[in-house]
Amino acid sequence: MSELDHLGIAVKSIDQARKLYESLGLNVVHEETVEHEHVRTALIPAGDARIELLEPTTPDSAVGRFLAKHGEGLHHVALHVEDIAGTLETLKARGVRLISEDIQTGAGGHLYFFVHPSSAGGVLLEICQDAIADV
Amino acid sequence: MSELDHLGIAVKSIDQARKLYESLGLNVVHEETVEHEHVRTALIPAGDARIELLEPTTPDSAVGRFLAKHGEGLHHVALHVEDIAGTLETLKARGVRLISEDIQTGAGGHLYFFVHPSSAGGVLLEICQDAIADV
Repeated sequence: MSELDHLGIAVKSIDQARKLYESLGLNVVHEETVEHEHVRTALIPAGDARIELLEPTTPDSAVGRFLAKHGEGLHHVALHVEDIAGTLETLKARGVRLISEDIQTGAGGHLYFFVHPSSAGGVLLEICQDAIADV
Repeated sequence: MSELDHLGIAVKSIDQARKLYESLGLNVVHEETVEHEHVRTALIPAGDARIELLEPTTPDSAVGRFLAKHGEGLHHVALHVEDIAGTLETLKARGVRLISEDIQTGAGGHLYFFVHPSSAGGVLLEICQDAIADV
């Protein structure tokens, strides 16, 4: 069974963006810089799912380029599955367009791949196996 | 305590968009047309939260205009709070920019208001009290 794992939101400043969520009783419980993605992340649990604020550490990172093109906003939606390898094969067999054909490793060591927005209603959809962090 | 309630995703066709989620083991459990918003909705539970597919019934509806301007994609994020009236007053007192100053009634009779994207990291943020539907 798949579950919503997190929403990635690209922001210019985590310190600024977290204030609204704190007004709503939601708090950052984990911060991490993912060096190879040039992004600083802050996780905010909201029920079973999490909001992941993404602040680029360099302008030419993926999130930095997203901000330059689109401004702040929703960057991706992540669904958590139990069998990521099986899910990848299922989607490939159905002709779903993927960002890359391989499973990768991200923040907190979780496994993931991305479905292209053209196959997911305009949404950049991350499929991940492990929760993004133990929070 | 606030929780992530649902993600609203604007799509041209619910019948087309639901197929990807069905490939991931996620299914539509509730469909409803909200006449005064000129939108057809389909709810897909994903863990404690839900994905809400939004298909306009007229091109000049809010979702129809969104599709014309942006194409398919994430339309809004909804957080569920226990005290919507108190939350509205808190945000007003902190100078958070709102789409409207009043609490409104939507699909399934749930109460809601929207925070303007300029105050929420580029995200159109719905604050709702009751769950969007009993699913």
